[in-house]
Amino acid sequence: MGLTPMQYAIEQAQLAFRANEVPVGAVVVREGRIIAASGNNVRNACDPTGHAEIRVLRQACLLLKTTWLIDCDLHVTLEPCPMCAQAIALTHIRHLYFGAYDPKGGGIEHGPRLFSLPCCHHHPEVFGGIEEEACAELLTRFFAEKRSAE
Amino acid sequence: MGLTPMQYAIEQAQLAFRANEVPVGAVVVREGRIIAASGNNVRNACDPTGHAEIRVLRQACLLLKTTWLIDCDLHVTLEPCPMCAQAIALTHIRHLYFGAYDPKGGGIEHGPRLFSLPCCHHHPEVFGGIEEEACAELLTRFFAEKRSAE
Repeated sequence: MGLTPMQYAIEQAQLAFRANEVPVGAVVVREGRIIAASGNNVRNACDPTGHAEIRVLRQACLLLKTTWLIDCDLHVTLEPCPMCAQAIALTHIRHLYFGAYDPKGGGIEHGPRLFSLPCCHHHPEVFGGIEEEACAELLTRFFAEKRSAE
Repeated sequence: MGLTPMQYAIEQAQLAFRANEVPVGAVVVREGRIIAASGNNVRNACDPTGHAEIRVLRQACLLLKTTWLIDCDLHVTLEPCPMCAQAIALTHIRHLYFGAYDPKGGGIEHGPRLFSLPCCHHHPEVFGGIEEEACAELLTRFFAEKRSAE
């Protein structure tokens, strides 16, 4: 049995954890195949935009030589922030699947609820709470370890 | 007489225009010096996140080996979209100067008004309408040429 896209995204999040990055992972799927995969790479890359979602969107676009991903789906372990939400809208991604909800930093179901604004030109179908427990547990453990190390 | 940072950003927008990109330009200034400069590079780079602001924030962070730009200012010819607004907040930029207002796509004074949301951890000082006419004229001309070519 192969991994589901979200399980693959969780693996990317685990790799990010080991690299001391906030453990979020993402994959882009097209025609049943994963065409891009990444975890967060912010601190190690000195890239404030290095969220997993931004990284896989850029990878997928470069691969397909386009800026539109209309026949692609994004799977990410955490509800995207407003930056990533707008990037998702810009690429016209078909479906967005996310794991844990993010009441503090999310931009889809929380905060600006970006896809609901009239200025948002594209609203992918959104499915939240996929493998929610596993996705959230990684984040909880990461921040608990950070706090105990302080 | 040297150029002001916004005039330099306009030059970057003009270069983007010539490259058939939406003519927006940006610079990051630190201690009176421009440390990063770019125009939009979306279509040519197949990068949906290749807005001028994202590009200069990434450049500046890579140069300074950090993800925080607390002693830096961003000058951009157009009101940033929600993606760029969130990236600006993430870097803790000190001041944001922008040229033209963007009622349709802007995320600062329009749309989600991102810096005003309680979930936004950093709110730079914002100065809009700098060299507004020159910044807006480039965009108007670009889109007029696009329409007439259709």
